[in-house]
Amino acid sequence: MRVEHPSPDRRRPYPDDIFVGAVDAQFLIGDEARDLRLNEITFRDGARNKLHTHTTDQILIVTAGQGIVATEHEEREIATGDIVHIPAGERHWHGAKPGADMTHLAILGAGKTYVVADDRPAD
Amino acid sequence: MRVEHPSPDRRRPYPDDIFVGAVDAQFLIGDEARDLRLNEITFRDGARNKLHTHTTDQILIVTAGQGIVATEHEEREIATGDIVHIPAGERHWHGAKPGADMTHLAILGAGKTYVVADDRPAD
Repeated sequence: MRVEHPSPDRRRPYPDDIFVGAVDAQFLIGDEARDLRLNEITFRDGARNKLHTHTTDQILIVTAGQGIVATEHEEREIATGDIVHIPAGERHWHGAKPGADMTHLAILGAGKTYVVADDRPAD
Repeated sequence: MRVEHPSPDRRRPYPDDIFVGAVDAQFLIGDEARDLRLNEITFRDGARNKLHTHTTDQILIVTAGQGIVATEHEEREIATGDIVHIPAGERHWHGAKPGADMTHLAILGAGKTYVVADDRPAD
């Protein structure tokens, strides 16, 4: 077993085509694990990711700030303590509310992530 | 997608042969999910579970109190904010420190849990 403790000191800028805006990340459980992955993502100043899917379920656990999680059909505000389940294959996006920051833990099974070419958030 | 918010009001006593002592639980992501499960467990007054294994990786996220996570080879104190990864098949147990309470989120892939017949925690 391994015990981790996410810390603001361990956040690093994480530029990636999936994001719109500035995002920091720390990777806590990675490919050394067989079934589960966990990272901490901080969306800064309204940053978010683009519409995407995973081939596995995802769980988001909000640990700070105020954010949004959305599918093509609905958009929900989320804040500290909220837990989101996104089924495998569901098109969705998440990030900070405009003008705010949001940090969440993101947990995935072993699988792949695909950005939807036509990035059109729910509205 | 579904947004949940664990609340002390939704905790219910959860007697089960796997536990030693009084435990409350709320089940937040269950069999309706394909790949992931999530529940919140509160170990009261030193309660813990018996030595057990899962057929899937497990992640524990401590949200309150002071606890212990152990394998047959080591014992670690854990507190709020700690994240534990337990690989599939590893014999382990977790619970509150003696005299304390501890609440954690527990995340599993789809799989089974087995209590080890000879419950002998690390010492």
